[in-house]
Amino acid sequence: METKFNVVGRRLPMHDAAAKVKGSAQFTADLTLPGMLHGKILRSNIPHGKILHIDTSRAEKLPGVKGVATGKEIPDRLYGIVPKARDEYALAKEKVRYIGDDVAAVCAVDPEIAEEAVQLIKVDYEELPAVFDPLEAMKEGAPLIHEGVLNNTSFSIRKEFGNAEKGFAESDFVFEDSFFSQAVNHAPLEPHAALAQYDSLRGEVTIWSSTQIPFFLRRNLSSTLQIPESKVRVIKPKVGGGFGQKIDMFAKDFCACWFAIKLGKPVKFVYEREEVFISTRQRHPMYITVKTGVKKDGTILAQQFKAHADGGAYNSTAPTMIALSCFFLMIPYHVPNLVYEGHHVYTNKPVGGAMRGHGIPQARFAVERQLDMIAERIGVDPAEIRMKNSIHAGEPHPAKFIINSCGFFDSVKKAADAIGWKEKRGKLPFGRGVGLAGASFPSGVSNMSHISSGAVVQLGQDGAVNVLSGAADIGQGAETVISQIVAEELGVLMEDVRITAADTGVTPLDPGTFGSGVTVRAGNAARLAALEAKNKLFEFVARKLEANPEDLVAANRKIFVKGSPETGMTFKDAIKGYQYADLPMPIVGRASWFPPATEPTTLFKEDGNFAPSYSFMTQSAEVEVDLDTGRVKLLKMATAHDCGRAINPMLVEGQLEGSVVGGMGQALYEDVIVEKGQVMNPSFLDYGFPTFLEMPEIETLEVETDDPIGPFGAKEAGEGTQLSPAPAIVNAIYDAIGIDFKELPVTPEKILRELEKKRG
Amino acid sequence: METKFNVVGRRLPMHDAAAKVKGSAQFTADLTLPGMLHGKILRSNIPHGKILHIDTSRAEKLPGVKGVATGKEIPDRLYGIVPKARDEYALAKEKVRYIGDDVAAVCAVDPEIAEEAVQLIKVDYEELPAVFDPLEAMKEGAPLIHEGVLNNTSFSIRKEFGNAEKGFAESDFVFEDSFFSQAVNHAPLEPHAALAQYDSLRGEVTIWSSTQIPFFLRRNLSSTLQIPESKVRVIKPKVGGGFGQKIDMFAKDFCACWFAIKLGKPVKFVYEREEVFISTRQRHPMYITVKTGVKKDGTILAQQFKAHADGGAYNSTAPTMIALSCFFLMIPYHVPNLVYEGHHVYTNKPVGGAMRGHGIPQARFAVERQLDMIAERIGVDPAEIRMKNSIHAGEPHPAKFIINSCGFFDSVKKAADAIGWKEKRGKLPFGRGVGLAGASFPSGVSNMSHISSGAVVQLGQDGAVNVLSGAADIGQGAETVISQIVAEELGVLMEDVRITAADTGVTPLDPGTFGSGVTVRAGNAARLAALEAKNKLFEFVARKLEANPEDLVAANRKIFVKGSPETGMTFKDAIKGYQYADLPMPIVGRASWFPPATEPTTLFKEDGNFAPSYSFMTQSAEVEVDLDTGRVKLLKMATAHDCGRAINPMLVEGQLEGSVVGGMGQALYEDVIVEKGQVMNPSFLDYGFPTFLEMPEIETLEVETDDPIGPFGAKEAGEGTQLSPAPAIVNAIYDAIGIDFKELPVTPEKILRELEKKRG
Repeated sequence: METKFNVVGRRLPMHDAAAKVKGSAQFTADLTLPGMLHGKILRSNIPHGKILHIDTSRAEKLPGVKGVATGKEIPDRLYGIVPKARDEYALAKEKVRYIGDDVAAVCAVDPEIAEEAVQLIKVDYEELPAVFDPLEAMKEGAPLIHEGVLNNTSFSIRKEFGNAEKGFAESDFVFEDSFFSQAVNHAPLEPHAALAQYDSLRGEVTIWSSTQIPFFLRRNLSSTLQIPESKVRVIKPKVGGGFGQKIDMFAKDFCACWFAIKLGKPVKFVYEREEVFISTRQRHPMYITVKTGVKKDGTILAQQFKAHADGGAYNSTAPTMIALSCFFLMIPYHVPNLVYEGHHVYTNKPVGGAMRGHGIPQARFAVERQLDMIAERIGVDPAEIRMKNSIHAGEPHPAKFIINSCGFFDSVKKAADAIGWKEKRGKLPFGRGVGLAGASFPSGVSNMSHISSGAVVQLGQDGAVNVLSGAADIGQGAETVISQIVAEELGVLMEDVRITAADTGVTPLDPGTFGSGVTVRAGNAARLAALEAKNKLFEFVARKLEANPEDLVAANRKIFVKGSPETGMTFKDAIKGYQYADLPMPIVGRASWFPPATEPTTLFKEDGNFAPSYSFMTQSAEVEVDLDTGRVKLLKMATAHDCGRAINPMLVEGQLEGSVVGGMGQALYEDVIVEKGQVMNPSFLDYGFPTFLEMPEIETLEVETDDPIGPFGAKEAGEGTQLSPAPAIVNAIYDAIGIDFKELPVTPEKILRELEKKRG
Repeated sequence: METKFNVVGRRLPMHDAAAKVKGSAQFTADLTLPGMLHGKILRSNIPHGKILHIDTSRAEKLPGVKGVATGKEIPDRLYGIVPKARDEYALAKEKVRYIGDDVAAVCAVDPEIAEEAVQLIKVDYEELPAVFDPLEAMKEGAPLIHEGVLNNTSFSIRKEFGNAEKGFAESDFVFEDSFFSQAVNHAPLEPHAALAQYDSLRGEVTIWSSTQIPFFLRRNLSSTLQIPESKVRVIKPKVGGGFGQKIDMFAKDFCACWFAIKLGKPVKFVYEREEVFISTRQRHPMYITVKTGVKKDGTILAQQFKAHADGGAYNSTAPTMIALSCFFLMIPYHVPNLVYEGHHVYTNKPVGGAMRGHGIPQARFAVERQLDMIAERIGVDPAEIRMKNSIHAGEPHPAKFIINSCGFFDSVKKAADAIGWKEKRGKLPFGRGVGLAGASFPSGVSNMSHISSGAVVQLGQDGAVNVLSGAADIGQGAETVISQIVAEELGVLMEDVRITAADTGVTPLDPGTFGSGVTVRAGNAARLAALEAKNKLFEFVARKLEANPEDLVAANRKIFVKGSPETGMTFKDAIKGYQYADLPMPIVGRASWFPPATEPTTLFKEDGNFAPSYSFMTQSAEVEVDLDTGRVKLLKMATAHDCGRAINPMLVEGQLEGSVVGGMGQALYEDVIVEKGQVMNPSFLDYGFPTFLEMPEIETLEVETDDPIGPFGAKEAGEGTQLSPAPAIVNAIYDAIGIDFKELPVTPEKILRELEKKRG
């Protein structure tokens, strides 16, 4: 798309790229404070059991140990980002529910002593029978993991749009298929860490945490520590990846604060990689059955969807996850009649949580795989069936989504063309094939319980623009995108903008990084704040130029009368003039942004416009299957992505490439293997996600739309693209070897087994 | 004074007291960054000479050394806080002008290697004749220290108010006396330090510096590094005292940035105590002659004042200092006819700079001493002569000062009473005596070249109040005072307020800490910003309560209709209501403050109202002189201080106690002894300032006035009180032993010598 912008739409490096590349950027683990102590967590080594007694005496006596905490001492306050789903204590109180559960914490003068002390704590358990599969856990007589949670099913959802029964009755064909998607770990490069400091006079605890949600973390810490929210300050240093794994509070956050308060010294916790694997969060394993009714031409008339998510030992975001995974069957296809049912089930295993796509990748895998199977069965081209069922902007939507912009139809076409669909699909030699899959994703959530995104923009007398934003950049480039938006609005260069983000003691309220809402929410807030500041400056400049403020434009560090770039002054001169006219400095703009109130859903309870806008994408893959080894080589993946206007196409491409890696992992490699509750591969070496060696050729295709809601037309980018790579790859495997895999990951072993079967 | 306030006027601990006491507060030297290097400065070991050649080769070859810089490489840019007085390079270019002058800098992996490398640098000098006394330096034929500065006199000032000649002619008596005040070091507990980091992508250098003037430091660094001001970010960590010594940029600031930019690594400089003594700043030694004409009753008719300040090798704040020392003879006494003349003279000695009182303590010593001598000569009581000549609020002022509030007359009375003046003066046994002296000081400067103080106040949804201020707290408690002002205005508690101060990348413009303007300027800005935020909240609350916003008051975390505390809601509920009404969060108030434009002076060029307001004080002392050893014991000092309304009386008292220590030091102990340009006592051990052992009883007397300009009636506190303790003590010594000392410090040696003479 031709751009009328100067900063927006440009391929600019992340504002903190040099700092990160050269090692001067500070992540939580890099921080030190005078007198700092170090903490470690003792974790359960049994999958299910009652805590009878914890003997911490030997640990306490170890020289260098400053404090030991167990569940007994800490307040009886559950935490969790979703209030109604709270079921977890920072340190286990009566029971442990999985291998890795937080049992006790130690604080010592160095991490080695803390670790040694952890080993000296003796816990007497009464072991309880454990259950490791959600379908088993739902059966009568299964061990009960949480008191009072019948059938271990903590959340169930069922909802119908239209009339599914009628839809099926009117269908020419009805197909039902079952799928399974495995446990995947986010594996952010930066392990989870927290550093806390307490000011006894002010009664205030400050925590630096590798978090995606500084303001929600503040709320969770306030509640679990039992101190007012105003006495908790959360600062987010650089974060080395989150992917949803850092939207929860963890024991490290609570314990760092707890010890800091108790001992009056700064306390740091840094998780080991193994802890990240077993004791944080993972993508939920999910059993899914999809029943779809279509007309002969492939038009979808009805769909029934049933999912059982293996939640592991705790809820985390359970109700949100299970609802999302069902609810977003409403895009990108027109499904006039839909009934869905989802269950979140406890098991004695590591805990499922939000992960890039948040419940939808599993559902999308099932639906996009089935769509290909249906297409094959009824003899319709898989690309055609997707275009035929594509939703379009402005159409009335069965769940009352308001789709202001939609590039889905085009995305299917572009992705198909890019992979050579017409020439290749069904026409390549055995062992080679192409496939595609589509998806859509919300750009944030319309109903956010009155939590707006705020921004403050200050124009200083040095000509620099200082932005305060509550947005949490976790490596995706939020700060860069916000800076570009502000620079564009003010008509300055990207390098003129300096952003301070995510310190609850300095920056305005923001919900944080989840649901792909950052660009739209925080970006709109920043743009409006910049506009307010600009308007103040324009009033002054207009007087100087004897012009109307409305006739002024700002671009490339100049403010001038529209159409006469020679009639104007530089941005710096304007600021200086403002200052020397003794007008109040700095010039401050302030704004906050809510999604427009167009019947937002009450989070899954009712219909309504779930998100301010929706992104769309189709990914196509070409694969080669080694018929001797069963190994799949992903040769190419093309992504056609409608993310509205790309504020920074380079960052969007980075997101797309990252989602290809994520999708490859989900499709072919990754699996958190658990045996009797024990994670068997909790290391980068054993877990085996894709590396540079496995990377395919990646082609990025722009399907730019100009969304009316987002800043400069932008929508979410990079989370939706995580939904379709895996089904695209598995669909391509079908094209290559004619085998319909319905369980992830599609490992060489499975391929060889199926090839064997096929051969007879 | 009875207070109608809840937070203002209360004795609250500094908001960061716990952090400082417990060691968690971070000063610049405490900071570390990954990969940080350490710098040291090579200093001149001769008082005056041409640099012929610097051989850095051996230093460069030392393992661990990463960079060496000399004056040759750095830009030809002079620095200095007063533009027209700039005469100093960060590293000497052609000449060195005193022992301690900055010659070269080294950057290495640790401070020890850097120090070793400094020793390996060989400098060839052509030594030049040096001069160490300003009166000598002014003579024809004296060595010229700076090219083109005739008679080494860099600044001279002469001005007359009224008609001095006529005044003297009409006087009954005319007395002329000469005085000398010595060099005194500020000796802040925290040595000067800087840590800089460079971001090569953004082209931006960030410096953490122990500075009083973040925004002026930004300007000086921008100019000397030749990078735009917007690319320099100055962050002020905790500062452990400044007293004026940290209002200059120093080699450490420049060199930390220079190396950080050049080497791409963070670089830290921390001065040794010896460097603080010899190479930063000190109070100017000054020769003063005062001629005063009085009527028989002691009424002052005319005064002539002549001062020669020993500036040392560079100007620093020379023109400001010399002007202040003369100009403020216009308060606290009514001097209808005044002619003054001041000269700032270079010598080959450590550099004079701003120090608590900034040129005025020397002048005040002379004038207050002479006033006592005159009183004695004409038979008028020293307290009487002060009251008789006191200026009063509202009087027309010869220099057009606008004195809106003045407690001077009362302060004389109170200070005299507190010391038992009537019973003791002239009536104590030989060796014991009482004395007093008065003073006045501006609360900041009216003409600040369009540099306002700004503040941003955010009311967050947690009920905390987050303040951004550019004010530089250097230990005096500025952040505490600003927090109290904001808390009072918003009707919350002090502990609800969190302040972020002095980060040029986050906080609004502020001139910094000097001239005692912080409380009035930054305090007013913060109050107005709080008011703006409060008004937004009041509008909402008024709608809820069905009241008029004008009828609402806020106090003790409640907002209610005036007179009906039961009709209202809590501050937190109000904020929550605001948020849940989906009004834009956070609530932001923004203000900046200039002194009211009532004919401000163009810094000493014309008459006018120099400052927004003026503080007044009288200090009285009782001393005991040991006739055998000559040692003076200060038994008691009482301070009667009109600082308007004391925002925090405990902090004011802390200031007063500090100024007693400073005054004792100036009067009796401190002296930077220089022999042939070499400082002989550059350590805490040798310098010998007063310690707890010497502390007298201190009595603080409130002379509260309600100034219309300052926030809640506040004026400056603690800098003016530095002016009168020394003359009060020396006046008491006269009362004790009948000897008129006119040179400081009054050491035991001098006393014994004079007692000897007296005994004959």
